Amino acid sequence: MKIYVVGLGPGGKEDMTLRAVHAIESADVVTGYDYYIELIRDMIGGKEVFSSAMKKEAERCKKALEYALSGKMVAMVSSGDAGIYGMAGLMYEVCAAHPEVKIEVIPGVTAACSGAAVVGAPLSHDFAVISLSDLLTPWEVIEKRIKAASDADFSICIYNPSSKKRSDYLNRACGYMLEYKSSDTPCAYAENIGREGEVYTICTLGELADVQTNMFTTVFIGNSQSRIINGRLVTPRGYKNI
Amino acid sequence: MKIYVVGLGPGGKEDMTLRAVHAIESADVVTGYDYYIELIRDMIGGKEVFSSAMKKEAERCKKALEYALSGKMVAMVSSGDAGIYGMAGLMYEVCAAHPEVKIEVIPGVTAACSGAAVVGAPLSHDFAVISLSDLLTPWEVIEKRIKAASDADFSICIYNPSSKKRSDYLNRACGYMLEYKSSDTPCAYAENIGREGEVYTICTLGELADVQTNMFTTVFIGNSQSRIINGRLVTPRGYKNI
Repeated sequence: MKIYVVGLGPGGKEDMTLRAVHAIESADVVTGYDYYIELIRDMIGGKEVFSSAMKKEAERCKKALEYALSGKMVAMVSSGDAGIYGMAGLMYEVCAAHPEVKIEVIPGVTAACSGAAVVGAPLSHDFAVISLSDLLTPWEVIEKRIKAASDADFSICIYNPSSKKRSDYLNRACGYMLEYKSSDTPCAYAENIGREGEVYTICTLGELADVQTNMFTTVFIGNSQSRIINGRLVTPRGYKNI
Repeated sequence: MKIYVVGLGPGGKEDMTLRAVHAIESADVVTGYDYYIELIRDMIGGKEVFSSAMKKEAERCKKALEYALSGKMVAMVSSGDAGIYGMAGLMYEVCAAHPEVKIEVIPGVTAACSGAAVVGAPLSHDFAVISLSDLLTPWEVIEKRIKAASDADFSICIYNPSSKKRSDYLNRACGYMLEYKSSDTPCAYAENIGREGEVYTICTLGELADVQTNMFTTVFIGNSQSRIINGRLVTPRGYKNI
């Protein structure tokens, strides 16, 4: 009895690992958020599919467990990496009472990595990854993390920077960062990474505060050493002999 | 004129993305640290190869630039993701005076993701990635980052936890974390991720302080919500209805 929790990477098949492709091929049932299922529809073929909407995550994991207990090989897919704000943790929680069900997490390219590759090399040194979604996390915790990461001069990658209901969250986050980081700190954001309409923008932290993003945007804030080289955001590792 | 900076993922071809495979196939010249070249030797075939030892990173990037300027398609390979403590940033720096050379970073699965998948799901919520190597970074900066990340209750992923010359670094880092995190904070470390001899160990932060690691070890420290489920380190995202 086995459940694969598969990270698809940013979007297209080109950005999937071979291990992820093979896991989906070997599964009897494929499950995931509707949108991700559509991304890999041509790989699924005639397999059984159980998809559902956002906010139905726990329900989907329970259904995956049911399928596994009935003897079917299940592949649960997420975009990016299944372990980074993905379904892997929740699947372990849901299967806690069933140690006989083997969970295999198949890692993928998370948006911190795929987005960084689009905008340059912003995460070449120590970095923090922070989600601005307060659906499951108190805002005070998010605020403390943003301030701590800024004070310690981490490069910062922000997931879920805003949505329709949270249109001012990135602005508020930039306010916290500006208490510790210079307003001319180089930043970048990438939209629709690895998908149609992929685009990136370079700006300063001062400018970022007024940018409107959406749930398909990943945001990068440099550290004190970051700079723009030929239109890309680059954080040096510190090599001297260049 | 183009240079691909390619992340190979943890090791074997199964963990590479199709895009990375295709970039190496389309290159005229493949360059990288000796050890990584050996990992993909069967994919290189009869192509020209320029490999060199550790600490020759800038030299390798300059050579890659020379090849590109001579009209050859170059693939520079790193393990993991090329943008996370990888060669992407350095390549942008080396090519700063040559905007006509197009750099395409091809992201891969970094050790934070591949290691997390081995030990469970430790990075399912906000996390910080910190290297303990002080070759290019003052130790005081590393110390400040570890303390800030611990105080703000990030899960932490540590790269380069120690080496022969730096055998007590992980012990010192644990000392800083223990100022803010409980000694029974669940932790894990993975060795030889995606390669022969892959193994992981679960322990507490108190125990981690006395663990001897090497340059092929990636270490994970949970946040205050992390726990052990069926022998894996899991950080919940906070779903209530499980």
